[in-house]
Amino acid sequence: MRRPARERGILGSVSSLDPAIAARLKRAAGADGRGLVAAIAQQHDTGEVLMLGWMDDEALHRTLTTGRATYWSRSREEYWVKGDTSGHVQHVVDVRLDCDGDTLLVRVDQVGAACHTGARTCFDDGLLAGG
Amino acid sequence: MRRPARERGILGSVSSLDPAIAARLKRAAGADGRGLVAAIAQQHDTGEVLMLGWMDDEALHRTLTTGRATYWSRSREEYWVKGDTSGHVQHVVDVRLDCDGDTLLVRVDQVGAACHTGARTCFDDGLLAGG
Repeated sequence: MRRPARERGILGSVSSLDPAIAARLKRAAGADGRGLVAAIAQQHDTGEVLMLGWMDDEALHRTLTTGRATYWSRSREEYWVKGDTSGHVQHVVDVRLDCDGDTLLVRVDQVGAACHTGARTCFDDGLLAGG
Repeated sequence: MRRPARERGILGSVSSLDPAIAARLKRAAGADGRGLVAAIAQQHDTGEVLMLGWMDDEALHRTLTTGRATYWSRSREEYWVKGDTSGHVQHVVDVRLDCDGDTLLVRVDQVGAACHTGARTCFDDGLLAGG
């Protein structure tokens, strides 16, 4: 049986992601044609929303199997193990897929700052209204 | 002065969004060429991540000015005031833009279930690992 395009990994490569999970993902084609899902990182105990990243099948597989949140960097076009450069690691507590299959909620234990600016979250300095 | 493409509203129309805010948004082109940013809805007091939706400039403008979370439905291709059909309104508490300008965190007071399945959040039934 020919697999539909949405079940193929990034750049058409095969990922090691559990096929049962891969079949549940509805990936945005994105401007670059890559199959990515949005991944919301949340601090597991405080509930802080830390950042939003993007995962393809392989990034999700690595996140699920290594215990370290791993994203696909759209700007650098490479996998990005959060904290490898900064030390600000995200230890994965659990991972949930939403009802539509196109968004992941990754609950983590964040070491230090989640944001590259040094702020705890990527939303700390961005108040538009309210508060 | 010619406005850069990223400052134009959906379908090239002009939105009423504050230009100072519009200039800060870095929109994903998306598969359909529309300028959308991801919008994470979070329950303001419990910290629950409720859902992820998408906003263009006009949806953000309406969210900021009406106090009701308003999204762009990618499937129905129309604005969608959360709760207009279901009664499950999201009253906006505050709105934050992330450091990259491509994700919004919308803290709300959610009436009833956030998910169209009737679950409190869109992630309730989607555990992939952990927990």
